[in-house]
Amino acid sequence: MSEVGQPAGRLRIAVIGGTGVLGSGLAQRWARAGYPVVIGSRDAGKAAQAAAAIAVPPGLPPVRGLSQSEAAVAADVIVLTVPFAAHNASLDAIRPSCGGKIVVDATVPLVPPKVGTAQIPIEGCAAVQASQRLGNDAVVVSAFHNISAHKLGGSDPIECDVLVFGDQRAAREAVIRLVEAAGLRGLHGGPLANSIAAEAMTSVLITINRLYKVDGAGIRITGP
Amino acid sequence: MSEVGQPAGRLRIAVIGGTGVLGSGLAQRWARAGYPVVIGSRDAGKAAQAAAAIAVPPGLPPVRGLSQSEAAVAADVIVLTVPFAAHNASLDAIRPSCGGKIVVDATVPLVPPKVGTAQIPIEGCAAVQASQRLGNDAVVVSAFHNISAHKLGGSDPIECDVLVFGDQRAAREAVIRLVEAAGLRGLHGGPLANSIAAEAMTSVLITINRLYKVDGAGIRITGP
Repeated sequence: MSEVGQPAGRLRIAVIGGTGVLGSGLAQRWARAGYPVVIGSRDAGKAAQAAAAIAVPPGLPPVRGLSQSEAAVAADVIVLTVPFAAHNASLDAIRPSCGGKIVVDATVPLVPPKVGTAQIPIEGCAAVQASQRLGNDAVVVSAFHNISAHKLGGSDPIECDVLVFGDQRAAREAVIRLVEAAGLRGLHGGPLANSIAAEAMTSVLITINRLYKVDGAGIRITGP
Repeated sequence: MSEVGQPAGRLRIAVIGGTGVLGSGLAQRWARAGYPVVIGSRDAGKAAQAAAAIAVPPGLPPVRGLSQSEAAVAADVIVLTVPFAAHNASLDAIRPSCGGKIVVDATVPLVPPKVGTAQIPIEGCAAVQASQRLGNDAVVVSAFHNISAHKLGGSDPIECDVLVFGDQRAAREAVIRLVEAAGLRGLHGGPLANSIAAEAMTSVLITINRLYKVDGAGIRITGP
């Protein structure tokens, strides 16, 4: 999938919703790891601003900013980091360009103001919702639900594993490599339907942050 | 709630489904911590056998075995450790005796043979299913979903936190004390609806056990 002028084997990544804290944190980490990254936003101007704010070492491709649909066209892997309220609209924006591509959905079905209470979409979870809306061509994998977004911008180690869900093992493997490129541990979490475990866990962690007055609780899987 | 002949402040615990691995492991740990424990089973004879198999230090109340309904009558706190297929029947058995009592539901909605795939009951999770079936009088709290049951019988430290869900904070607190009495760390997980996070996580952990060839993966919450 590499093109002339890009490091061989480096997937081009579009981060849709990359102007947010989670999206820009991931974009920064992947860009610094040498991946060509495009930030996609409903407002291409804001995307360009967010891209320009990410410093990349000399010799590596700079981050670009485009509209959501343009960013999806320009990428091999599309990562969705949008609020639940924008989930369907963003899926519709990328749908024409995601055939055969991996779509990494980080969406958590939070419904403000009660974000400490888990919500279950009628499809069972946000990830299955995405898969159904995008159709058979896209390969939906979900991940990054439990990461405290603001910690991605820092340099402290993040005490949180990333569970990766998807119905195709090879696609999960590819996403686990992206998780590792972002400096985190990724683990196979099983089929896409299992994504509800991590999606709902976000509301649990929000509750724990509040009740125990901690900054960014996370989860670790013990055993593997 | 203590009676003559029982250590003051020690809740009497019924473990419904206490002939299984999870139930007998918990019963053993609570009995050795000095709690009066009754094992409840559909077959009172099997309950008595399971109770007799639990050695308790001299001076502490021995574990007794009764039918499910008798065990529920005899307890202050009722703990449910039954397979999902027996969930509704067990709830019906204890319903007449659980008014005003805390019912700790450990049920995970696993549907064999695909136990590595999360299932979502129409009520949203097994714990809310229990609460709706028992009615307003019982105070349902859910916990112990992610503990590798066979490890409860051993003496090695168990690398797993116990998330405790319930709509009443005081009831969650009481259950967290029981978790601690069993030698584990319990954490507030928020309202009962959040139980789906831990219930579905069990299928994730089963998947991880299989894919990574580990014995009893668990979860740790980082932060608190």
